[in-house]
Formats: sequence, structure tokens, C-alpha cells
Amino acid sequence: MDTKSLTIKKETGFTTVLINHGEVNLLTNELILELQQVVAELNKDELNRAVIFRSSNPHFFSAHLDVTVINRREEGITGTANFMQLIDDVKNMNAITFAIVDGAARGGGNEFAMACDIVYGTENAVFAQPEISTNIPPGGQGSVQAARRLGRTRALEFLLTSADMDAPTAERFGLITRHVPSASLEQTLQQIVTPITFLEQRDIDMMKEIVDLAIKDEKAAIELEKKRFIERSGEDKTQYLIGKVLKHGAQTSREIHISELLADVAADVMQDMAQMKQ
Amino acid sequence: MDTKSLTIKKETGFTTVLINHGEVNLLTNELILELQQVVAELNKDELNRAVIFRSSNPHFFSAHLDVTVINRREEGITGTANFMQLIDDVKNMNAITFAIVDGAARGGGNEFAMACDIVYGTENAVFAQPEISTNIPPGGQGSVQAARRLGRTRALEFLLTSADMDAPTAERFGLITRHVPSASLEQTLQQIVTPITFLEQRDIDMMKEIVDLAIKDEKAAIELEKKRFIERSGEDKTQYLIGKVLKHGAQTSREIHISELLADVAADVMQDMAQMKQ
Amino acid sequence: MDTKSLTIKKETGFTTVLINHGEVNLLTNELILELQQVVAELNKDELNRAVIFRSSNPHFFSAHLDVTVINRREEGITGTANFMQLIDDVKNMNAITFAIVDGAARGGGNEFAMACDIVYGTENAVFAQPEISTNIPPGGQGSVQAARRLGRTRALEFLLTSADMDAPTAERFGLITRHVPSASLEQTLQQIVTPITFLEQRDIDMMKEIVDLAIKDEKAAIELEKKRFIERSGEDKTQYLIGKVLKHGAQTSREIHISELLADVAADVMQDMAQMKQ
Repeated sequence: MDTKSLTIKKETGFTTVLINHGEVNLLTNELILELQQVVAELNKDELNRAVIFRSSNPHFFSAHLDVTVINRREEGITGTANFMQLIDDVKNMNAITFAIVDGAARGGGNEFAMACDIVYGTENAVFAQPEISTNIPPGGQGSVQAARRLGRTRALEFLLTSADMDAPTAERFGLITRHVPSASLEQTLQQIVTPITFLEQRDIDMMKEIVDLAIKDEKAAIELEKKRFIERSGEDKTQYLIGKVLKHGAQTSREIHISELLADVAADVMQDMAQMKQ
Repeated sequence: MDTKSLTIKKETGFTTVLINHGEVNLLTNELILELQQVVAELNKDELNRAVIFRSSNPHFFSAHLDVTVINRREEGITGTANFMQLIDDVKNMNAITFAIVDGAARGGGNEFAMACDIVYGTENAVFAQPEISTNIPPGGQGSVQAARRLGRTRALEFLLTSADMDAPTAERFGLITRHVPSASLEQTLQQIVTPITFLEQRDIDMMKEIVDLAIKDEKAAIELEKKRFIERSGEDKTQYLIGKVLKHGAQTSREIHISELLADVAADVMQDMAQMKQ
Repeated sequence: MDTKSLTIKKETGFTTVLINHGEVNLLTNELILELQQVVAELNKDELNRAVIFRSSNPHFFSAHLDVTVINRREEGITGTANFMQLIDDVKNMNAITFAIVDGAARGGGNEFAMACDIVYGTENAVFAQPEISTNIPPGGQGSVQAARRLGRTRALEFLLTSADMDAPTAERFGLITRHVPSASLEQTLQQIVTPITFLEQRDIDMMKEIVDLAIKDEKAAIELEKKRFIERSGEDKTQYLIGKVLKHGAQTSREIHISELLADVAADVMQDMAQMKQ
């Protein structure tokens, strides 16, 4: 990919996208188009399971949408449409997406973060939807995401005051996944991303399918989960992995030290895979 | 307004309603009617954007509904209906409503607080729905609000035990907007209420509309938000305010100090308004 | 009841079920059938209002479902069906159910806990749904409950990483009702269970009915709550209890010390009941 403001770093099973666009990582039409292109390319990568969006700017994850596209002139209409499409595209990515917010994420910048599956905020992060201060509502699903994550009362406070929310508060109120201090960010990312890279794409699809349905319709999701459990139970891969966990002490008190047990299983599986490749 | 138990204090863009009714701010039919009258009057005030309900009682926000109206005699039927109507009326106020709970809010008192858009609780606050101890469920939407804010498991614990919940717990579990220590209450109110007083009524209506829909139907709310964004983008007021934020350093690293930037914008806008009035 | 792995202890109005099954409280078909039998028996006990599920294993609440039933052979099909039925049966118990998790609750073990109305976790507790590590989704509503309690973003992190979640985090994120340190567990249980034992079965049914509806349909639940309030208001029991609370200082500043007031009411009521029995 030929990108000007984005640095793409591919590793085994996951990709980091580093945003470096002008003074404040403003979501200009140029950056939006580049992000759309990268999202489309990453969706084609069948070995990719996770995408980590980060900023190289010390102060901003992304300041917000370029306000010069907020008008009804031709380039405004196009820019707005592109931005709204980008938010949908990020929400619909195949990979599990992470936003690492280590600076300000306001307006469209916060909406871009909220479009990711998982959001970590450091002690330097602030989140805001200050659009109403310029007479407009958020346009990239910011008020909808605020409502669904914060609940009615905190969403109204957040949206009507334009105020910054720090990461500990955003975690406490459910706006973001976790407050992760920057000192432990790399370790947290490794712990969370690594098991995801071991999954198949269909595992991610299945979990998103059940989780999304569960939020809308508990009863229907229970039936779907049962169905998927029964389908998967009969697969050879399931029997193979059950054999491995039993071999390494599952169902005994060795499960007290489950991470050791699972590490042994992983090493065993990797040895099998290496032998298969020979 | 001629009120006996309520002191109404109007300031620029917001109103404080101080409740002082008997020993425990009991929601008698008399107090309910007076509150209904005040709510109706405030809805007519086109310059009012926020209403702050407070208590002058050192121990009680409001003890609860007068239990002598809980019967099927004529005055009981009327009192119950008036109370249920009051809860609906407070929920449907035009202004953003605040309940400042610095004492006990139990039963109908808690339901009155929950009917407000935003609830702050101090270290002196307790919240409870102890109705089941007298053989009845809450009647002012208390069990419904508990379920929606606390979730099933905590709502059942809360409702079946009649127990008091303090403000830090109520914040942690999402029953109230925030725990605000009484020492920082005035400062918090000023920070939150001031930006709301700068809004138009239609801004508040729009945000309530999107937030309420988002909680019921995420997809429909996304479409509504986009529609409102596009409508508002074309307004002269939007272009004027975008011009102002750009003039004062938006989209540059000056956004690191966003509160200074926004204060400059506000001062600039107020200067324009003063000139227009001349 | 003739049980091998379960110790049933009946007290006034509530029952403790102690699980002691092999090395890790594995949910084998044998244990599942025994739990189903106990659940059915407890539903017949008209004086029982609460059931407390605990483990006598120092390390495990329950490790998980026996993985040897996860297959499509005859005993696998039966075992899976029994497990899924158990989860539904626990969710539908008449009594308010508690899971006291003082060790590991993973997979089916966590699903059994989530099927209870109230879950307390100690400093020794961990919660996990690690099924995806063996190629399957949870099958006992684990992904559905994770989605509904944690929200989309935390549920995906939880389900896709197979990671253990400790009780303070599980409380903060809403997976469990409360983190209760083991040192204060007995006291907490007494405080919470005692008032529930004073209720009638129809009180529990009514509260579950309103809470469950409120989560699905706020408007319908408001109407249901009003209806139940009006029905109950006219009952003799309500008038009797209102008389008692008024006699002991309700609606006066004595409500500052509400627990003393309620204790006096309880003593008074018990005296009446003792006299009636003579």
C-alpha cells in the first residue's frame, strides 16, 4: 500500500496502523480516503486477525473531523459521506480492531475510536463529542455510541457539555474497554492480541454474531449459541484440541495453574503443526 | 408562582427549585400538586435550559411518597394518580433536570430523583426502593429504573432487600450519574450547567431524541443522527461558529489547550452578540 | 434427597447447596443430573425463598463442563442436552439463587454461576469462558450472558482471549453482582438473604416479572409496575404493614435511623404472628 499519513506494520496475525497526519491527526478527506484504502486492503488479508490503530502524535489520537467539510457544498457533501462510510467500514472489518488512545480523541476522532471493537485509553487520553458547541450533533455515530455505552443520563451530560472525559472515568462509565496506563500498554496488547492471532476468521465471525445478537435479542442468541456449540462439537479440530487439553492435565487440579496448562497445549499443537509442514 | 414548600430561584438560563416540606420532605398530595404546578410553569419559560432540584432538609432529599395515599379510597386513588403523573411530567420536562441528592431518597423520593435527567449524590446520600417491605412494588417507575440502570442481578438485590445504597456504590453500579462530594458540588454544577445554558431548546430536544432512540434501536438512531448532522451542517449558525473556532486555533496544536480555545470562542461570540444588540 | 456430590442444608426460608464433586467440581453428567434433581426438589419447597450454591473445593467453584461430553456421540448428545437444560432450570427456579464463587468458575462453571440471580465473587474467584481455545463457543449461554453484562467491547475481549477475570474487575464491568471479600462473605449473605426470607413467593415473582420486562420494554414495564402497585395497594396486608411503619415513626425524622425503625416493625409483626399462632 502506498500511504502518506499511515505507517502499516504487519506481524504474524496482526497489523499495526500508525497515524501521522499533520499537526493534530485531523480527519481530512485525504486521511479518510487513505484509511478507507487501508481498511479495504486489510480485509483482503486472510491471515490477519487483529488491527491496532495508534497515533504517532504525542498529543492527539485524532483531533476530529476537518470542520471545513461540514457544509453543504460539493466537497462538504463528499467529505461527510466519506467520513460516515469510514466509520461503517471500520465497524465492519473482518479483524478485531483496537484503538489505542494515548492523547485527545474528540469528535470524529472519538467516533473513529468507538468504531473499533476494543478501545484502550492511557493517562494521556481524553474523549469528547463537542459537536454541539458548533451547532451540530455528532455525525459518525458518536451520540449513538455514547448513549449505548454510557446510558441515557451520562450520555446527555457528556454530549450537552462538550466536556473531555479521561480514561479512568471512561472505563468506569463503560465508554471504553479499559484504562491501560501507557507503561503497561505493550504488555497488555501482547496478552490480548496473541490469543486472537491463534483464532480462525470464522471464530471471530461466530463470536461477533452471537454477541451482536445477544445485545438485541437474548432469547434468539441463546438458541444461536446452542446451535453453534452443537455444530462445532462434532468437528475433528474440537476432538483434537480436547485430546490435547486432557493430555496436559485438564479436568484435574492442574487447572489451578491454567496458564501453564494452556502454554503446554499451545507448544504441543505447534509441534504437531511443524511436523505436518515437513 | 405562589408556592409554600418550594423556593424557586431563577438565574440566567437555569432555575433552582429548593424543596422544604415538613420534617422529611414527604411527597404528600399537597407537595405533589405544588411540584406539578412548578414543572408546568418552568416548561413555559422559553429561556430556561436547566432545572436543579435540591432539598433544604439536612437529612432528606425526600423520604418517600406519603403512605397514607397508598390505599384504594378516593383520596388514595387521586394521590397515587397525581404522583404517577408527576413522575411522567418531570421525565418530560423541556429543560435538562438535575436531582442533587444530599440526604435520603427512598421510595417515591428516589423515583423523583430517577425521573430527572441527571442525578448527583453526595457522601450523605442514600437511595432505596423499600416498598416491598410494605407489600407493594414501587409505583413511580422505581423498579423499572432500577432494572434499566442496575441490570437484572443488581436490581433484584436492590429491590428485594429494601437496602440503602450509598452514592459511590450507586455511581459504580450506574444507578446515578455521579457521586459528587458535597464539597465540590457547587463547582461541578457550575461546570455542567453553564454549557447547557448556552444551548438552544432545540439542541436539547435533538440530543434527547437521538439518545432515547439509540437505547431502543441502534440502527435507526444512526440514521437519525446522520440526518440531523446533514440538516444542521448547512445552517448559517454552524458556519459562523466554525469560523470562530478556526479563528481561535481549531485544527492546530492549540487544541492541546482546548478549554482556553473554547473560552476565547465564547468571549468572541458574546462580543458579537453585544454588538448586535446595539 | 439422596445426593452423592451435593450437601443440602435447609434453614428457615433458605437452602445452601454445597458442591463437592471430584478434584475440580467438574460438571459431569452425573453431577448435572444430581443438580437437576435438587433444583426440582427445591422448587417444590413452598417455604424456600433463596438457594445459595457454594463449593467445598478450596480452588474451584466448578472447573467447567466435562469435555468428554462435547462430541456428537450418543452420550455426548445426552450430556450436552442435560447441561443446557440445567442452565435453563437454574435460571427458572422459584427461589432467588446465589452463586458464591470463591475459586475458579470457568466455562460451564461460569455459566452455572451466571444462571443464578445473584453472583458474589471473592478474592479467590476467577471467571472465564475459554471455550474458543478448544474450537467451540460456550454452550450454556456464556457468550450471551457475557454480551449482556459486559457490553459488546468487553465481551469480545473476554470471549476471544479465554482470559481469567478476577472478581474486582468482574464487579467493575458488571459480569457479577458484587466482589465480596471472603472475610465478609457470611455477614453479607446474612444481610442480603434475611430480608428475602421474609418475602412471599409472589413478591419474588412480581419483582422478577417487572425487572425482566423492564429490560426488554421500558414502557410496558412502567404500565405493569403501575398495575401491580394499584392491585397491591388495596390489600389488607399493605394496610396492616403501613399501620405498623407509621406506629414506629415512619414519615418522621425517625427515618434517619431507618434500620432501627424497620427492626422495630419486624419485631412487632413477629409478635402479632406469635399471638395468632396461640
